[in-house]
Amino acid sequence: MDDGEYAAGHARPVRADLGREGRKGVPEVILADRKRPEDSLAAVRSFLEGRGRAILSRTPESLADRLRSEYVGYRFQGFERSGIVVIKRPDFEDVPRTGGKVGILTAGTSDIAIAEEAQIVAVEMGCDVRAYYDVGVAGIHRLADPLADLRTWPADVIVVAAGMDGALPSVVCGLADVPVIGLPTPIGYGLGGDGVAALMTMLQTCAPGLTVVNIGNGVGAGATAGLIANKVAAARRTAQPDAKAAIREARQ
Amino acid sequence: MDDGEYAAGHARPVRADLGREGRKGVPEVILADRKRPEDSLAAVRSFLEGRGRAILSRTPESLADRLRSEYVGYRFQGFERSGIVVIKRPDFEDVPRTGGKVGILTAGTSDIAIAEEAQIVAVEMGCDVRAYYDVGVAGIHRLADPLADLRTWPADVIVVAAGMDGALPSVVCGLADVPVIGLPTPIGYGLGGDGVAALMTMLQTCAPGLTVVNIGNGVGAGATAGLIANKVAAARRTAQPDAKAAIREARQ
Amino acid sequence: MDDGEYAAGHARPVRADLGREGRKGVPEVILADRKRPEDSLAAVRSFLEGRGRAILSRTPESLADRLRSEYVGYRFQGFERSGIVVIKRPDFEDVPRTGGKVGILTAGTSDIAIAEEAQIVAVEMGCDVRAYYDVGVAGIHRLADPLADLRTWPADVIVVAAGMDGALPSVVCGLADVPVIGLPTPIGYGLGGDGVAALMTMLQTCAPGLTVVNIGNGVGAGATAGLIANKVAAARRTAQPDAKAAIREARQ
Amino acid sequence: MDDGEYAAGHARPVRADLGREGRKGVPEVILADRKRPEDSLAAVRSFLEGRGRAILSRTPESLADRLRSEYVGYRFQGFERSGIVVIKRPDFEDVPRTGGKVGILTAGTSDIAIAEEAQIVAVEMGCDVRAYYDVGVAGIHRLADPLADLRTWPADVIVVAAGMDGALPSVVCGLADVPVIGLPTPIGYGLGGDGVAALMTMLQTCAPGLTVVNIGNGVGAGATAGLIANKVAAARRTAQPDAKAAIREARQ
Amino acid sequence: MDDGEYAAGHARPVRADLGREGRKGVPEVILADRKRPEDSLAAVRSFLEGRGRAILSRTPESLADRLRSEYVGYRFQGFERSGIVVIKRPDFEDVPRTGGKVGILTAGTSDIAIAEEAQIVAVEMGCDVRAYYDVGVAGIHRLADPLADLRTWPADVIVVAAGMDGALPSVVCGLADVPVIGLPTPIGYGLGGDGVAALMTMLQTCAPGLTVVNIGNGVGAGATAGLIANKVAAARRTAQPDAKAAIREARQ
Amino acid sequence: MDDGEYAAGHARPVRADLGREGRKGVPEVILADRKRPEDSLAAVRSFLEGRGRAILSRTPESLADRLRSEYVGYRFQGFERSGIVVIKRPDFEDVPRTGGKVGILTAGTSDIAIAEEAQIVAVEMGCDVRAYYDVGVAGIHRLADPLADLRTWPADVIVVAAGMDGALPSVVCGLADVPVIGLPTPIGYGLGGDGVAALMTMLQTCAPGLTVVNIGNGVGAGATAGLIANKVAAARRTAQPDAKAAIREARQ
Amino acid sequence: MDDGEYAAGHARPVRADLGREGRKGVPEVILADRKRPEDSLAAVRSFLEGRGRAILSRTPESLADRLRSEYVGYRFQGFERSGIVVIKRPDFEDVPRTGGKVGILTAGTSDIAIAEEAQIVAVEMGCDVRAYYDVGVAGIHRLADPLADLRTWPADVIVVAAGMDGALPSVVCGLADVPVIGLPTPIGYGLGGDGVAALMTMLQTCAPGLTVVNIGNGVGAGATAGLIANKVAAARRTAQPDAKAAIREARQ
Amino acid sequence: MDDGEYAAGHARPVRADLGREGRKGVPEVILADRKRPEDSLAAVRSFLEGRGRAILSRTPESLADRLRSEYVGYRFQGFERSGIVVIKRPDFEDVPRTGGKVGILTAGTSDIAIAEEAQIVAVEMGCDVRAYYDVGVAGIHRLADPLADLRTWPADVIVVAAGMDGALPSVVCGLADVPVIGLPTPIGYGLGGDGVAALMTMLQTCAPGLTVVNIGNGVGAGATAGLIANKVAAARRTAQPDAKAAIREARQ
Repeated sequence: MDDGEYAAGHARPVRADLGREGRKGVPEVILADRKRPEDSLAAVRSFLEGRGRAILSRTPESLADRLRSEYVGYRFQGFERSGIVVIKRPDFEDVPRTGGKVGILTAGTSDIAIAEEAQIVAVEMGCDVRAYYDVGVAGIHRLADPLADLRTWPADVIVVAAGMDGALPSVVCGLADVPVIGLPTPIGYGLGGDGVAALMTMLQTCAPGLTVVNIGNGVGAGATAGLIANKVAAARRTAQPDAKAAIREARQ
Repeated sequence: MDDGEYAAGHARPVRADLGREGRKGVPEVILADRKRPEDSLAAVRSFLEGRGRAILSRTPESLADRLRSEYVGYRFQGFERSGIVVIKRPDFEDVPRTGGKVGILTAGTSDIAIAEEAQIVAVEMGCDVRAYYDVGVAGIHRLADPLADLRTWPADVIVVAAGMDGALPSVVCGLADVPVIGLPTPIGYGLGGDGVAALMTMLQTCAPGLTVVNIGNGVGAGATAGLIANKVAAARRTAQPDAKAAIREARQ
Repeated sequence: MDDGEYAAGHARPVRADLGREGRKGVPEVILADRKRPEDSLAAVRSFLEGRGRAILSRTPESLADRLRSEYVGYRFQGFERSGIVVIKRPDFEDVPRTGGKVGILTAGTSDIAIAEEAQIVAVEMGCDVRAYYDVGVAGIHRLADPLADLRTWPADVIVVAAGMDGALPSVVCGLADVPVIGLPTPIGYGLGGDGVAALMTMLQTCAPGLTVVNIGNGVGAGATAGLIANKVAAARRTAQPDAKAAIREARQ
Repeated sequence: MDDGEYAAGHARPVRADLGREGRKGVPEVILADRKRPEDSLAAVRSFLEGRGRAILSRTPESLADRLRSEYVGYRFQGFERSGIVVIKRPDFEDVPRTGGKVGILTAGTSDIAIAEEAQIVAVEMGCDVRAYYDVGVAGIHRLADPLADLRTWPADVIVVAAGMDGALPSVVCGLADVPVIGLPTPIGYGLGGDGVAALMTMLQTCAPGLTVVNIGNGVGAGATAGLIANKVAAARRTAQPDAKAAIREARQ
Repeated sequence: MDDGEYAAGHARPVRADLGREGRKGVPEVILADRKRPEDSLAAVRSFLEGRGRAILSRTPESLADRLRSEYVGYRFQGFERSGIVVIKRPDFEDVPRTGGKVGILTAGTSDIAIAEEAQIVAVEMGCDVRAYYDVGVAGIHRLADPLADLRTWPADVIVVAAGMDGALPSVVCGLADVPVIGLPTPIGYGLGGDGVAALMTMLQTCAPGLTVVNIGNGVGAGATAGLIANKVAAARRTAQPDAKAAIREARQ
Repeated sequence: MDDGEYAAGHARPVRADLGREGRKGVPEVILADRKRPEDSLAAVRSFLEGRGRAILSRTPESLADRLRSEYVGYRFQGFERSGIVVIKRPDFEDVPRTGGKVGILTAGTSDIAIAEEAQIVAVEMGCDVRAYYDVGVAGIHRLADPLADLRTWPADVIVVAAGMDGALPSVVCGLADVPVIGLPTPIGYGLGGDGVAALMTMLQTCAPGLTVVNIGNGVGAGATAGLIANKVAAARRTAQPDAKAAIREARQ
Repeated sequence: MDDGEYAAGHARPVRADLGREGRKGVPEVILADRKRPEDSLAAVRSFLEGRGRAILSRTPESLADRLRSEYVGYRFQGFERSGIVVIKRPDFEDVPRTGGKVGILTAGTSDIAIAEEAQIVAVEMGCDVRAYYDVGVAGIHRLADPLADLRTWPADVIVVAAGMDGALPSVVCGLADVPVIGLPTPIGYGLGGDGVAALMTMLQTCAPGLTVVNIGNGVGAGATAGLIANKVAAARRTAQPDAKAAIREARQ
Repeated sequence: MDDGEYAAGHARPVRADLGREGRKGVPEVILADRKRPEDSLAAVRSFLEGRGRAILSRTPESLADRLRSEYVGYRFQGFERSGIVVIKRPDFEDVPRTGGKVGILTAGTSDIAIAEEAQIVAVEMGCDVRAYYDVGVAGIHRLADPLADLRTWPADVIVVAAGMDGALPSVVCGLADVPVIGLPTPIGYGLGGDGVAALMTMLQTCAPGLTVVNIGNGVGAGATAGLIANKVAAARRTAQPDAKAAIREARQ
């Protein structure tokens, strides 16, 4: 079907918001599964031209293939579980590492697809990420090692992805002393099995320090985690130049 | 307002089901908050006459007072948190102890009212009960002692009452090797705060061996726990008389 | 799409929880319909190596075929209705029969797929199982024979699977004197037709002794039934050796 | 607070629909708990003047008292459980008995308040009513006698009121050969305890011949039952006069 | 995948309830879309052998084709909109016409698929059916003719199928003086568009005499309508033989 | 309890948005039932000082009394059903009549409380309002007169308030040729009885030209109706001056 | 499957409501995705014959192709995003331009499919339409230009389509002084992601002047917007003829 | 009613978790409205003895009075809107100021009660708080000043409390470059009016950096905000001592 001409109508073309990354320090992510392929391609083109990098989530395989063949010579990364695709113009400068530290945990194997979204967004914001997958909650003893690891690193913030009973974020938040972001996933069965049970149990948490994002919103969890970690890292960095300046002064 | 006469109608009087206790080994409990006081009183009278014992749950204080003053000389027990009332005719024989062992845990203080229902029903079925209240889930270390205690006793079945995030039953079920009954309570706030979040997270559990009852159904949880514990205890007892008989025979 | 390299990320590999079976006496079941085929295959491999047996539920036909051709020489059982697959290493020792007795009933033909999950899990836990399918509730007279059969066996616990109006578990629980596990199935139409009506009516039961699992959770129902039956059977067995020892002693 | 004058507005007074009873053969019932007392009183006055009879449901005690003292010399019937009030002008002719036969069953004691609404509406439509209260479902054997009674009468239609698991109407409908009207009541606890579980299980019935009304709509159930019974009775009556006429003719 | 042998299990074969038709006067309908083809075929075979007629609803085209080629020489009727299939053994005696009169209305074109189920079930119960499709509610004037038609026939009961706003059954019930059965259909969009809005508005009706079945339950609506119409028709018929007998007697 | 001093906190005082009326031509309404009395009083004071008029909705009787005694000499209007209170400073100039025409209909008596909100807001925006209460839907013939009246006036827009089945707005919208605003009220029983059924059926309407506001939002319905009527009236007025100017010109 | 003959049944053919356009000034739209292709084709034929124009929404590509090849020589417009198809008979007179002005805004790219429905319906009602797509809400600064544009035009009414958080309509309604129609779209993720969150936030608006249609009901939003704009435009026009007449009179 | 003795039961006393504050740096808050007064009093006593400070939320006035008269000589702060009470032992050392900066905004007056919880918790964690109440969303221009203020301070994190349409947090998050915590409040009407609409719209946000807590969970929002602000402040502080040490070293 082709779009017939429509004289009386008057519709402005689609414009990407290239400015948000500057305002927020969070890269825009193109949600490819809610767009027509041509709309996704237009958005990719606009971002690559404007900012040198385009990130897509939930990319259908056919669209990923098309992008790969269209952007030869560009850096291309494709992640199968999550359908995340990152394309960078050859002259795109690497994201400067901020020193922000983001920990990521998943309760099960099936939660990885969502958690991967958070991981990649945080990395593209310049954070270091340590991810531990399938730590379970039915056998809470498997949680001890990853948590000890994150505590001694130490992580500035932890994202915990869980479907089913969604209990892991509360448990982690009761044991960790950093902010925890609960990321419910649409994994489960029967009543509440589309992630609603997981979301609701996270919202009901008794553990102070836990906030949540919507079911399956790995991009949002990664963005907030990156934002928090980068704020903490910036405070660390900010202090040091002053200190170094003072040191230099003192030396003179 | 008085009931006018109604010639054409034809309504049979209310009859209590005195036989269920015999069939199931579970005492009938009169849910006093869903009945008119006169209906509750009629049911109490019928049970005391027929079986010598009446148990009420969620008894309004005024009804409890009225029962206490009406049944002078009867054994009367009133439990303030749950509103459970147990009345026994002076000649009612003590429930024989079955040897069934029921463990009960609650996540918080507010869950006790519901858990008490389970406790009393199990006791009235002849079980021994050990209850540990307010063991939390935000600080999972507080769970270790009660669980060790129940394992060495050992409990035949454990009831775990929890509101809010409802995570405790799954955690307990991941650590214990007996059947666990999840008892969601209507404690919480916001979305799912009427116990729905707790119920849904229990239904979504990954821990095999967990079944649930409805929100606030402490009576049902206690009845099933008592039934399971008594089946196990009966198997223990049944074997022994045979064995003793065999021993006696062998001795001859 | 292939997974691009991701230098800054750091993700631990997937690990199966081989220890749970030992702790709980319940075999782990791999939910194949929520995993990528390669994740299911990795889990199967891990279980076959570690414990000699792997059980999958809701196995897509293509995965079942692949497993059958990959594990030649292994014992392979595939159940079409439920998609359960059981694979055993040639040297896997048969599960010792515990003497636990599990009864299973379904209301309709369509509930068998779910009930079969419960049946197989209980069998793999060493229980004896008697299953009666399609006993209906609209014509309650068809229930009499199976129930009499289970009473004289006698079953230690009964699982009742029902979709639609979900009334059968309450009816069975009102007639039987053993614990009953209500297993709602996602069979129905219109409002509540995804199993929610069946689940809710089971949660509202007046019959003491009924607990429930989530819609479609045949694995969980079988695991709990197996756990209860095995506890009762263990009590029967435990007593006897002591008795036999006493007999031997008495004989001397 | 008094109603200020409002010049620009223009609102017509409240008018009762006195004609519906003629069109449908079903008396109008004033739902007193959703109206201001003065609106209820106005409606009562209008019906007594227009039709000689007024029926109110869920009448607050204070309103009932006021009506009783206002309409001295009128026939007044008040039903405490349901809050139904029937007032008849001294010259109101008794409703002619139609010969329609309506059976009513309730699952529990608490369902009587709702079932009473159905009973009174059917009686005021000229039907004969037989009501059996508290027949239970947990012990299905208590159902046998009432059902046999209704079958030999025989009832033209049966209303079955049930809260909690709401299973009784399906069970009755599976055993009776007349239309059954399921009347869910707002009795229950936890999830679905406001009558939603009962309503949904009735909607999911496998028993052909069961239709339902909304939770607590005893008036509607009684009206439909009366309508069905009266249609059947009219067919019985209609035939006979013809027959009698034919007989008379034949005799001549 | 083939069903492996399972020694320890013990499952009874599937049995059709051939007796219900006798008890209720309502033919059993095989819901083909919730069964495996082999289960549907087994049920068809069982009904054709036992009763000479099999009725299926929501029959997939492939199954209908298979039935047609398998039962050559049988009377076969297939209805495309609803997927109803009726097969009759060559020696099956035509259903005797009862004289019951069932009116059927649909609000829109899309509701016909569901209404057709009701129509066919009523016809197979021996009723006469008059169906008026797409009478709308947005333009209520289109309703006048069909309604006048049904009133002068006169219909004993009316089934009204409606999706979207579901307003038609209330409107019809406010105008007709026979019982009306509201049949909500899963036609709509957005919030409540799966038939929930239609069902809820029917449950909230102010028009006495309206009862409902679940969304899309055309079979149930037809069965109840048939049951009511047949009861009325039986009363008409029953009276006459007596009358005729009296006439004969009087003549002598 | 008094507010303790809290040094570290820093909270700005409450400010009323006095400017919105100017921007939108819609008066601000103080929702008194969601505020502490002192917050309502502060808002009233602020509006009376800033704009000369304050309008409150759902005013508790005690607050209305306090306002009446506090603002002696002010024009005070109190509406009992809705709890609307309008207070005007003695020097407040009467709202100029715009010539906008708003029709209002309610299905039942109980809907008047909500419809009155719409009526008063429209009047305070300068519109003429004609309201017809209790026109019903079960007897659609009662609708004819009011509708004919509104058509010949003619109304620029119609607000239709309905609870229960919520069918009236669709019916009106199918018959009228002006925009209709559906105003669902929280009147009903059982499932959907809090106005959800009424809202959903309005959202599902097939009648083009119907938009809705939330359950019980009479203020919003009145504001939009007033806005539409005033736009139409302004177009009527606007044209005339031009015309008059042209006339003057033509005369010269 | 072919429709078997069905002697006893009696079903009237499908009739399109050709009169509604005359009554309401709103063209009927055929919802092609809820109909069988043959039903859609029949409706198209009926409209083209009766009124010279047929409009379909959500037209499957195959149906659009079939229409295009069937109606050669007719004017055919197909819109790919929304699946709207407009077919006009060669002799169909162009819709007269009314001068009504409708503004349309969408929050995101994915909302265009729904907004396009509103646009085309309004155009086919003779309105002028200005549409601004993807104005966002996360960066509210992008909203300024379109809004200024609509204010100076000036638009008579604005339709705002939004999925996800659904916040844009409230924001627009707080800034514009014309009626705003909120059009929620089924774009989103997780809880409320099917448009329910967007709908609910619009229903909860504090901005007076906002009414809503159901999720995805672009046709309804366009129809109401067209109705409002045409009423305002008619008032503008109506005045002028009178004025012109007066001018003529004055001139004489 | 007094608690009868219960020999067979065995229940451990209630224990407060005094250690969590040490682990998390977040003070425990006693939710007084979900506890019996005696349980609240016991918890207060335990915290005052163990940690010198007790914080209660949603304290009933009677309990606040009792605490005030019981703890004479203690520092007592009571906040009327939120019902927060803070009691400090005379020797309790003031919480050291951390330098963490928390901004708080509310959409309306009614949201203050919930926002106050967040404010006090953050202050008791040593943060500086700037709160701006009633900034609205219908008139977004009122938001500019507070936001500019928070940006130049600059706040480390912002809590935004909103009921009704819940749009404010997304708007703020689109404009601010720090993490934002959405705090839905149970203010609203009709569908979603218990805070569900506000929560869902926040969960659906397009603005990266927004996470949410449950409806009404001001304590949780304040705790997380305090945790984030204190992490950032600690990074600022931590760097400086090192720097100072380096300076000292460099000086030597």
